[in-house]
Amino acid sequence: MSIIYIKKISRGLEQQIKNNVLAIGDKLPSLREFCKIYGTSQTTAIKVYYELESKGLIETRPKSGYFISGSLKRIPALPKTSQPDPESGNILIEDLLEKVYNNPAPINITLAHAVVADELLPIAKLNKGLIQAMRELKGSGTGYGEIQGNEKLRRQIARHTFNMPDLRHEDIITTTGCINAIAYAMMALGKPGDTIAVESPVYFGILQLARSLGLKVLELPTHSQTGIEIDALKQALEANRINLCLLVSNFSNPLGSLMPDEHKKEVVRLIQKYNIPLIEDDIYGDIYFGANRPGTCKAYDESGLVLWCSSVSKTLAPGYRVGWLSPGKFKSEILRLKLFHSIASTNITQEVIANFLETGRYEHHLRKLRNTLHTNSLQYIRAINDYFPDGTKVSRPQGGMVLWVEFDKKIDTIKLYDLAIKKGVSIAPGRLFTLQNQFSHCIRLNYGTPWNDSLDKGLKDLADIAIQLSI
Amino acid sequence: MSIIYIKKISRGLEQQIKNNVLAIGDKLPSLREFCKIYGTSQTTAIKVYYELESKGLIETRPKSGYFISGSLKRIPALPKTSQPDPESGNILIEDLLEKVYNNPAPINITLAHAVVADELLPIAKLNKGLIQAMRELKGSGTGYGEIQGNEKLRRQIARHTFNMPDLRHEDIITTTGCINAIAYAMMALGKPGDTIAVESPVYFGILQLARSLGLKVLELPTHSQTGIEIDALKQALEANRINLCLLVSNFSNPLGSLMPDEHKKEVVRLIQKYNIPLIEDDIYGDIYFGANRPGTCKAYDESGLVLWCSSVSKTLAPGYRVGWLSPGKFKSEILRLKLFHSIASTNITQEVIANFLETGRYEHHLRKLRNTLHTNSLQYIRAINDYFPDGTKVSRPQGGMVLWVEFDKKIDTIKLYDLAIKKGVSIAPGRLFTLQNQFSHCIRLNYGTPWNDSLDKGLKDLADIAIQLSI
Repeated sequence: MSIIYIKKISRGLEQQIKNNVLAIGDKLPSLREFCKIYGTSQTTAIKVYYELESKGLIETRPKSGYFISGSLKRIPALPKTSQPDPESGNILIEDLLEKVYNNPAPINITLAHAVVADELLPIAKLNKGLIQAMRELKGSGTGYGEIQGNEKLRRQIARHTFNMPDLRHEDIITTTGCINAIAYAMMALGKPGDTIAVESPVYFGILQLARSLGLKVLELPTHSQTGIEIDALKQALEANRINLCLLVSNFSNPLGSLMPDEHKKEVVRLIQKYNIPLIEDDIYGDIYFGANRPGTCKAYDESGLVLWCSSVSKTLAPGYRVGWLSPGKFKSEILRLKLFHSIASTNITQEVIANFLETGRYEHHLRKLRNTLHTNSLQYIRAINDYFPDGTKVSRPQGGMVLWVEFDKKIDTIKLYDLAIKKGVSIAPGRLFTLQNQFSHCIRLNYGTPWNDSLDKGLKDLADIAIQLSI
Repeated sequence: MSIIYIKKISRGLEQQIKNNVLAIGDKLPSLREFCKIYGTSQTTAIKVYYELESKGLIETRPKSGYFISGSLKRIPALPKTSQPDPESGNILIEDLLEKVYNNPAPINITLAHAVVADELLPIAKLNKGLIQAMRELKGSGTGYGEIQGNEKLRRQIARHTFNMPDLRHEDIITTTGCINAIAYAMMALGKPGDTIAVESPVYFGILQLARSLGLKVLELPTHSQTGIEIDALKQALEANRINLCLLVSNFSNPLGSLMPDEHKKEVVRLIQKYNIPLIEDDIYGDIYFGANRPGTCKAYDESGLVLWCSSVSKTLAPGYRVGWLSPGKFKSEILRLKLFHSIASTNITQEVIANFLETGRYEHHLRKLRNTLHTNSLQYIRAINDYFPDGTKVSRPQGGMVLWVEFDKKIDTIKLYDLAIKKGVSIAPGRLFTLQNQFSHCIRLNYGTPWNDSLDKGLKDLADIAIQLSI
């Protein structure tokens, strides 16, 4: 088949995408179907799709096929690598947090959180699981569970993490959500005055927790695609500046960055060399848009220095408060802290999650959730591209549920927040994600709600305000 | 009716008690029934019962009637007021705790915990409540609940505490059990190196928590009936020796002491004078054997210095991990700690408890539970009296579910533990309840399991070992 014919078919598809006949998230014919439709060979089909892929219009999803991923306009640029101050910051963010997350104003469009909408959660199946757990669990879960956590759940977590085959249920301690795991890790490993290295920007919950425990926070340069800059971490370690490290290795909040395997390996090599513990927050790891579940730093760790933390709060049921950590060589310290601070975790919700993992319902649910969130992310990026001021940069998350948007420096996103909330649109200003004077022209947007017209309208309203502010 | 006739009837009843025709916990005829049975006036009936009451053989239970409370033998003496070292102790108890609570030896009779047996919990009703909560709660409780805690639960707690009429739901924060409330309170109010005053003996969980937060622990003399010695607390406050105070005002663990109202009032006056916060652990308050729910220090507090902590872990469902505190003027600090360390509590279990309180099922359950535990306590005391070495002293708890037993000083209760566990009987040695070198001849026994022959046998075995050790 001639190159001309290939270009002809691909231009036709381009036109359909441009006219929204093919919309973001739509599935394209399989290669086999393509051959039937166009009367071509499979090689031609592959070449046509490659042509569209190279223009960023479609994308392959493993085991699912080809999907529309973009419009014909240019894709917005990525934010540059962050350049936080090399000194620890200590600007208070409590008042801003209070304003954003305790605002009594009526909100129609909530883009400020990092959650998945109720309609994307398998609530009916979880409820069935609750009744099953009630029947099967000794005393229906009214008695104290094991201090270390529900054993069935720990076994299932160990089984589920197939890229860490050495992990056993004895290595896992359950907690009240992922942040509780991180809290115990910080309490066990840091003492007041110690310094913890983190990404920048970084989830405000981590900043608040670290500060409340008297830790200094060293924010390090971070790339929106590949995560923390290894050189910066290396220098900080060499200079003996840090006592503890925390990384969101997979789909960091708010950047959505994914540390390449080589970076993970190198980070583990470095922390081992300097004998510095690493808290690995992997709460978003199961929500990947690529071919496979990305690996963890923990998988490379032979020293026991990595404390791997996660939960089902981003994928199943935040209200269940089921999280866990694998504390490496700090097991006895963490177990003691859990015992002292809460004795045990709620038993019945742990059992429900254990059953969900055991029966494969979790994987089944994740497959759907990943597809929906991936499509969502593309829809949101498309809308930002269409509506937001020229020059706006947007992260291209490879998983998770948040976008990081960087406006022109003229735009103060606290002002943007104040004006947007009057229109019922809630966003997270960039200043929440640092203790330094940076990111005041950035926002984080949640794409955990399936696309609809009112979201489109909300983003348009937000764009209009941003354009006003940029004049 | 002549005095002789009264004595005759009462001697008959005495004989029946002696012969175990009337056993501990049995209900006696009501006054009206008594008149019919014996053909006497109600005045005679009252006098007969008074005769038996004054011998400690029967007792009045408010709204329930007269019950057999003791046998004819003498009641064991009460332990003397404790005399801890006036300096802070720092003896490690971790190894002993590990030995007692992680012992792989087979255990038939568990007397080492402070829990109520499953069979005394209203599990079927809680399960019904779980299904109801699943139906009624938005998203079946899968979404994040309020940071401060489920509002319905907070309203019900406020309503339930009728002796603190000023308490509102805004003043309550829910937590992962009572110890988690205490943990947040200690973290908010104490810094490493500060001194916290507590009762002596005191629940080991409080000792461990305080130490893990770097607090020094000052144990103060405590009476087995009336709790902490007010003078000792006053002197410590006057000498500016303490930064923080923690009291189990109602049915302290392990003594079962109940602070008289006047003591509670005086403690609040003192802490207000010296501006020292008081953590009031009221986890046992609902399990009273007297006429009314005892009051709290919190009820006398006008300064906001008292942090009142409790839970349903001792009465309904420890595995639900539902606790709370009313943090007085420290609300914002505690709320922030809860947010930083766990975001929110498990939502659905809170809703179940809220419904339980709302429908009166909690009060209904408590009435039965109190009666059972009261009778249990008398049965256990009777057995100790019958079997244990002469001179053994026993607390006479006015609520709760634990007994404090004081042997002759010759008896080392760690040895007693070692020998008893070989017979399948588990006890809590006294050394667990202090950081000082004291109570090594004491044990704590749980009476949360309804009386049965194998318990009787277990206590007999324990007594035999104690007698051997005392020779």
